[in-house]
Amino acid sequence: MGEMGAKRWNFGANQTIDESCSQHVRGFLDLLADKLDSNDDRSVIPLGHGDPSPFPTFRTDPAAVEAVCDALRSAKFNHYSTSTGLPLARKAVAEYLSRDLSYKISQNDVYLTAGCHQAIEVLISTLAVPGVNILMPRPTYPMYDSRASFSQLEIRRYDLLPENGWEVDLNAIETLADEKTVALLLINPCNPCGNVFSRQHLQKIAETASKLGVLVIADEVYMNIVFGDKPFVSMAEFSEIVPVIMIGGISKRWFVPGWRFGWMLTLDPHNIMKDSGLVRSLANILNMSTDPTTFIQGAIPDILGKTKDDFFSSKLETLRECSETCYKEIKKIPCITCPYKPEASMFTMVKLDLTLLEDINDDLEFCCKLAKEESLIILPGRAVGLKNWLRITFAVELELLIDGLSRLNNFAQRHSKKKP
Amino acid sequence: MGEMGAKRWNFGANQTIDESCSQHVRGFLDLLADKLDSNDDRSVIPLGHGDPSPFPTFRTDPAAVEAVCDALRSAKFNHYSTSTGLPLARKAVAEYLSRDLSYKISQNDVYLTAGCHQAIEVLISTLAVPGVNILMPRPTYPMYDSRASFSQLEIRRYDLLPENGWEVDLNAIETLADEKTVALLLINPCNPCGNVFSRQHLQKIAETASKLGVLVIADEVYMNIVFGDKPFVSMAEFSEIVPVIMIGGISKRWFVPGWRFGWMLTLDPHNIMKDSGLVRSLANILNMSTDPTTFIQGAIPDILGKTKDDFFSSKLETLRECSETCYKEIKKIPCITCPYKPEASMFTMVKLDLTLLEDINDDLEFCCKLAKEESLIILPGRAVGLKNWLRITFAVELELLIDGLSRLNNFAQRHSKKKP
Repeated sequence: MGEMGAKRWNFGANQTIDESCSQHVRGFLDLLADKLDSNDDRSVIPLGHGDPSPFPTFRTDPAAVEAVCDALRSAKFNHYSTSTGLPLARKAVAEYLSRDLSYKISQNDVYLTAGCHQAIEVLISTLAVPGVNILMPRPTYPMYDSRASFSQLEIRRYDLLPENGWEVDLNAIETLADEKTVALLLINPCNPCGNVFSRQHLQKIAETASKLGVLVIADEVYMNIVFGDKPFVSMAEFSEIVPVIMIGGISKRWFVPGWRFGWMLTLDPHNIMKDSGLVRSLANILNMSTDPTTFIQGAIPDILGKTKDDFFSSKLETLRECSETCYKEIKKIPCITCPYKPEASMFTMVKLDLTLLEDINDDLEFCCKLAKEESLIILPGRAVGLKNWLRITFAVELELLIDGLSRLNNFAQRHSKKKP
Repeated sequence: MGEMGAKRWNFGANQTIDESCSQHVRGFLDLLADKLDSNDDRSVIPLGHGDPSPFPTFRTDPAAVEAVCDALRSAKFNHYSTSTGLPLARKAVAEYLSRDLSYKISQNDVYLTAGCHQAIEVLISTLAVPGVNILMPRPTYPMYDSRASFSQLEIRRYDLLPENGWEVDLNAIETLADEKTVALLLINPCNPCGNVFSRQHLQKIAETASKLGVLVIADEVYMNIVFGDKPFVSMAEFSEIVPVIMIGGISKRWFVPGWRFGWMLTLDPHNIMKDSGLVRSLANILNMSTDPTTFIQGAIPDILGKTKDDFFSSKLETLRECSETCYKEIKKIPCITCPYKPEASMFTMVKLDLTLLEDINDDLEFCCKLAKEESLIILPGRAVGLKNWLRITFAVELELLIDGLSRLNNFAQRHSKKKP
């Protein structure tokens, strides 16, 4: 038995997984982290991903922490969850989301998940029957792409138009869709573009989707992270027009992505998704999937009900200040333009003008050299589907953001073509 | 737009999911819950699934609760996890599991998951490349079956032999396997049979798997729930002979399945799984999957390191008492025989003798009528792959167990054929 390595073993890699994972945000961030210069004494500035939770300014509400501790200490929530979530937590989510809507959400519409990621996993797995396709935005949040690729669900890509404030290219959607198109994904407020979509535009999207016979996946995890002039409108308002599956969670508004608590809602007033069998399949896949931590579910009524408005408004004010600083500082940087001032989420997309740079050929090279020379992590646009753009998060401490953008400016100046 | 229901929509059910889910434990428990008689004033006795956490006797260690509260209040663990888990938690798990082993586990071997369920999800998904098959036990823990079916991974079933103390039918394994067999699943301590496998038997299994070129999935989530005379031996001890993927977690030993914290280990001293690409694929699928709650990871060094032996020994003593009572009481019941006295886990398998019953045709009818007439939930054996057997959990409060087995006895007496 000493010659294990010499004989033949039957198992091996899973190529579908390896290929699906290759374009993931985490993969790019790991690549950039490898480029960092350990001799650089400056601290690394992370403008690559949207997780401000480690910063003191974005510390979560102590009342939410105590709600979880109370649920834990009650010893009432150590047991396995039911597969769709505890009724008390589903009810609390339905009431919370119904507050600002003309549409009344029932607790039976609510499926609790281990963060939005799990909602994406189960939803994409369920939609991915052989031969169908899905419409996804460019640029995008690439977890959807990875999961669709893994489930062998064909992706058809529509553009968000920077020249139109990142609105959906509705004409393209009609051209792209066919009778095998099952869903259209819309991320609103938009990750990575930082915009919100207007009520009029959302209605057009809903009407187009309805005409094409596709449901709308409304990823609204940033629904309350809105600080510009344009109000956020939920796609739930149009569920009379088109069946909607809404995805959301507490990760962003409470700054607790590590708590892994999200939800998936079926907004289906005409029972179209129910009658098609889709709702049952969603319940069934949840029945054979892991669940969100039970004691966090137990705390959800208090978390959603008792967090004070002051907490939210002060955090929003900070994000507004960060986003405006970001927009203003980016304007000073040669070779980078921001087509749309961010009004929501934690990100903005900026375009690289490579013709102005002398020794950088694309966004990935830009970000790799930036990491190495400035200890600054920014995500190359290709990670979200737009080559030669950058996705910058402004959701960090303001001083750190200013320092980071100053490093970015220095880097851009240093690599700019010299004027003749 | 008012005629949504009349037009054609492109989406629908996912049959693969619906079929995969149909044999799940939760599905049977839901079915039995529907049979309960609401006019029965007695409380329902749940001997259908293994989750004693709601009972006062099985309340988790307060030190573990405080460890989680401390991690939460520190505000250091609200952020997204890394995809394989926080290094401090991986290290703590490696050290904890290495304590009782001659094999030294590295923290790089450890992948943290949202409970064992997620470990099963990602592992089965990764192994399921087209054309391969997996060896699974009968009876079994059916989550593996559901996930294999969902991933279209062919299951080949070997028997556990009740007449041999539920040992593996090793001859069958050699007959079942071919060059497309990637893995053999062994659940030890055994759910649902309640036995542990001897060192000699484990070595034979390892040698057989090695000869066949298949890795061993060692589901050892019940590794510390052992109260009989036979010692538990981990399959890790045989990883020099065959590559092992071990699955486990804190759910059972700490009685906190709702905390959703598990692990998956690659025990691969000869780098066979690594060189095959399997380890990379496992890391890649975790990179596009949800993570265990970060603050529970933050608490893991204290949970694993500081829980006192007294806590474990008193719980084990209770389970031993419950298992012995269960075995003794079952002996008194006509039409039911228990072939092996449970020595581990939370379950025992008992065989129905239908020839002694006058108006019951199979295990499902038995359990449905039992739920209706006695407000007692017991899992029909078909849910775990053995028709006309029952899986009984003894991990409940002792008085409740005695009451439940008394109801079972009454039921069996009442439905027994009258002697001529």
